[in-house]
Amino acid sequence: MTSDAANTPPGEIGARTWAIAEGYIPSESSGEGPALESHEAACMLNAGDHDADVAITVFFENREPAGPYRVTVPSRRTAHVRFNDLDQPERIPRDTGYAALIQSSEPLVVQHTRLDSRQPALALLSTIAHPAT
Amino acid sequence: MTSDAANTPPGEIGARTWAIAEGYIPSESSGEGPALESHEAACMLNAGDHDADVAITVFFENREPAGPYRVTVPSRRTAHVRFNDLDQPERIPRDTGYAALIQSSEPLVVQHTRLDSRQPALALLSTIAHPAT
Amino acid sequence: MTSDAANTPPGEIGARTWAIAEGYIPSESSGEGPALESHEAACMLNAGDHDADVAITVFFENREPAGPYRVTVPSRRTAHVRFNDLDQPERIPRDTGYAALIQSSEPLVVQHTRLDSRQPALALLSTIAHPAT
Amino acid sequence: MTSDAANTPPGEIGARTWAIAEGYIPSESSGEGPALESHEAACMLNAGDHDADVAITVFFENREPAGPYRVTVPSRRTAHVRFNDLDQPERIPRDTGYAALIQSSEPLVVQHTRLDSRQPALALLSTIAHPAT
Repeated sequence: MTSDAANTPPGEIGARTWAIAEGYIPSESSGEGPALESHEAACMLNAGDHDADVAITVFFENREPAGPYRVTVPSRRTAHVRFNDLDQPERIPRDTGYAALIQSSEPLVVQHTRLDSRQPALALLSTIAHPAT
Repeated sequence: MTSDAANTPPGEIGARTWAIAEGYIPSESSGEGPALESHEAACMLNAGDHDADVAITVFFENREPAGPYRVTVPSRRTAHVRFNDLDQPERIPRDTGYAALIQSSEPLVVQHTRLDSRQPALALLSTIAHPAT
Repeated sequence: MTSDAANTPPGEIGARTWAIAEGYIPSESSGEGPALESHEAACMLNAGDHDADVAITVFFENREPAGPYRVTVPSRRTAHVRFNDLDQPERIPRDTGYAALIQSSEPLVVQHTRLDSRQPALALLSTIAHPAT
Repeated sequence: MTSDAANTPPGEIGARTWAIAEGYIPSESSGEGPALESHEAACMLNAGDHDADVAITVFFENREPAGPYRVTVPSRRTAHVRFNDLDQPERIPRDTGYAALIQSSEPLVVQHTRLDSRQPALALLSTIAHPAT
């Protein structure tokens, strides 16, 4: 990686706390295979030299939060974590609004993406998450 | 929730004032049921320990603003508020451009999402809202 | 509008300079009428008490910038400006990548949205623009 | 370009370091021609008076990063760089999650867009990238 004086060092890119206010996993899909299954992901980049220990807490409209879900994002790696796959300490319910808080031991960049294939032509949404500073 | 020294405390995540510059509720839908009805939502996360009193003001192109619409986002909860459902003090017109200002008594994170099912394959958009600081 | 001490005053919400790095107006549409025509918009909110004089400059990949395009966003109003409709000093070409710089006399919030109906099921994208600070 | 005292000078708009946490190039397309091919782009605006030398590093989930990929964004120009087209020092694999770090000699604004035409109705996503500051 290039890193001259004018650029932020890779280990300082991003924030240690991020929030995703919109979460919703549709229970139905019209595509075949995991690539086209309706899903929601937190995509995390750890550009630095230290592995990041990440705790994800999931918030709901009508009950106490779930988690923390534990994930490691290794140094100089990205992790595209599907909320569909999280099941420890509990599975995230489908067709239910939620939100997520992401707390990391190292700076990360977090982007939130959903693929919705309930109808026979998929739809996508994505946004940068909110970095708490 | 994990919260060591390096992470922002949950009660300080986000901002008390947010703006959504793009609003538009299509009047038509091709899906069945509320999940697939064309709609627009402000998704709010209150990760802190105090309930948030929220006032939403809606701006238009050719008339005075509407509102405030009053919503409570309880402590450690998310609220996915559909603009379609707001009707006090007045209903938000369909097929009309608008924008929204969200003012809260506690820090929130706000994300803006639209599901458009006018044509027989839904489309989605989402973005983090703009935090005023 | 509610505006207690903890909230940013409406006249100070946003920034006077914004950038949209992605622009592209598809020349084809499959829907009927202006609502379903492929289009791209800069949605601007002026929550303050003074009208905003806005200058939009459009950048290209292989030629000098076009503009400025002049728009007024009145006090306490939103304007959803379609790049398709801008024609003074010149029309923006279709099927061509561009970017936009928005400079305002008053603080605004700017969101960028595209509706693409080239194929017979529309697609949407939206993002908050980048506020220069 | 207009540039009175209240506006940020064009040469100072944006940041020199940006991150895109979500990357994925679908290997299949249903449209015809390059405009409707599934693709992913980093759209960059250089509003200033100096050409920007840009280095893009691509991160993966299970291997060391690729790059840097070298791009120039000329003064007062935008560049819509498709990750599909990058092939020096190596091609970016399809159907594979990745992330990108963008380091520039001059301030830029960066937006991330994907067009997915795997199913016969394209989907779009876009978000402002994360500026490191």
